[in-house]
Amino acid sequence: MENGNGRSLSGMYGSVCNFLRRCLFRVLSYGPIPKHIAFIMDGNRRFARSRNLKEGVGHRVGFMALMSILQYCYELGVKYVTVYAFSIDNFNRKPDEVQYVMDLMQEKIEELIKEESIVNKYGIKINFFGNLNLLNEPVRRAAERAIAATAGNTQAVFSVCVAYTSTDEIVHSVNESCIEKRASIRQVNLNSNGASDNNSEIEYLEGDNLGACVISLADLERHMYTAGCPDPDILIRTSGEARLSNFLLWQTTFCYLLAPDALWPEISLRHLVWAVLEYQHVQPYLEKKKKQL
Amino acid sequence: MENGNGRSLSGMYGSVCNFLRRCLFRVLSYGPIPKHIAFIMDGNRRFARSRNLKEGVGHRVGFMALMSILQYCYELGVKYVTVYAFSIDNFNRKPDEVQYVMDLMQEKIEELIKEESIVNKYGIKINFFGNLNLLNEPVRRAAERAIAATAGNTQAVFSVCVAYTSTDEIVHSVNESCIEKRASIRQVNLNSNGASDNNSEIEYLEGDNLGACVISLADLERHMYTAGCPDPDILIRTSGEARLSNFLLWQTTFCYLLAPDALWPEISLRHLVWAVLEYQHVQPYLEKKKKQL
Repeated sequence: MENGNGRSLSGMYGSVCNFLRRCLFRVLSYGPIPKHIAFIMDGNRRFARSRNLKEGVGHRVGFMALMSILQYCYELGVKYVTVYAFSIDNFNRKPDEVQYVMDLMQEKIEELIKEESIVNKYGIKINFFGNLNLLNEPVRRAAERAIAATAGNTQAVFSVCVAYTSTDEIVHSVNESCIEKRASIRQVNLNSNGASDNNSEIEYLEGDNLGACVISLADLERHMYTAGCPDPDILIRTSGEARLSNFLLWQTTFCYLLAPDALWPEISLRHLVWAVLEYQHVQPYLEKKKKQL
Repeated sequence: MENGNGRSLSGMYGSVCNFLRRCLFRVLSYGPIPKHIAFIMDGNRRFARSRNLKEGVGHRVGFMALMSILQYCYELGVKYVTVYAFSIDNFNRKPDEVQYVMDLMQEKIEELIKEESIVNKYGIKINFFGNLNLLNEPVRRAAERAIAATAGNTQAVFSVCVAYTSTDEIVHSVNESCIEKRASIRQVNLNSNGASDNNSEIEYLEGDNLGACVISLADLERHMYTAGCPDPDILIRTSGEARLSNFLLWQTTFCYLLAPDALWPEISLRHLVWAVLEYQHVQPYLEKKKKQL
């Protein structure tokens, strides 16, 4: 019965929900609010199968769930949200499924940078972490447009891990560090010996300055895709599976891990509130642990 | 009442328990048995505090719990057990506590390599993973003796992570890979240009063979401390804390994570059995996921 009365009742219901949610968030804000929450969005396909829907519908409902969760996070004051959207290993799925997800991703990225989207409402900067060269051309271009269009936003950060695995990120960081190291060694060589000097880098590396070519933890961290974002405080993996599946392994040392049973499209406000309450319970202990470092 | 009757009753009780445990393990063996279980032994100090005992007592009871768990694992057919004994960050604890743990470690390592110990009973090879240079001399020497004494054992493997963090392991692996890469580039240079050639490594790196100096995932894996051990199937962290604390981050991508509430000294057979049952429940799914790689 979608008449005028129905619409106004539904609008009133929405307003009451919004009001209650804001009250709830105000109460939660008396405790520490996580700076960064990461999500492994697991269970889209199982959601569709369990309801006899086409597989793609699971991903579409999953995207709607993501938009709600993003809204709740930013309303609550969480500045950074990171999601695992598509792993490098996912490219091994059936080609038509991969194509479907890629098309959906392109469509949704383009929606995100429209004027009226959540991204503009909350001033969100979008990052894409991963080996974007593995994406097909239209998705990569859409991702690049989204990065460029939101680069000036500073209120919140939404990072999408796509064509990503954590081990690939570490290998990428290692090779970037090596390139940087070689460049700086080359520079020092040129400065100290002159451009025409025939001393090889090998000899230089074996000299007193060998320490200069050792790659440090700080070098690796500087070249991670996630450099500039604080490490996540909470990692939520839906579908009740307690494993990291090669997601942010480097960054989750002091992260509180949660694995609610809900499939990703079923994730809701209560899961987020529960996660924040659990975090608030352990946060003083985690802070103490971090300070011991 | 420790008289003859008491002793024989206690002996009978022990035999019955052993028999029942072996029956239970026989039943469990109808399902898949994990090859590798890793433990974060958390809660020794809290155990002592909660019982008004000296802090060191918690660590001693924790060691007894470790010996029982090791026995159960090897009886069950788990070939690899890895424990997080002391992290690099733990060196920041109070000096007398660090000293106490080091002394205890030395004492227990020496006990382990005695003729009648569990190590000889089950033919266990002992590894120590970590930056052993950070240990004091007596502990490092004890560790080296244990490695040497058990190097020929092949039935089971017990790996102790000490002076360890996962990020330190990765940085170590990166630098070992760099050294290897440099050596192989140097070798190729010598072979192709002759030892007296003045072409520098810099020029070589900028040439067609630049790909040869890229560090790959396989390079990093080969130089991890854990190279040669399969990745853990289950990671159990006691004390109910669901975080990895910089332990085996690289190796736990497809690992089933469990966080029982028990403090480490309270860990018992039932926790292990429960973990294996949970693993058997999810194992077919995990195997399917691994095959998708």
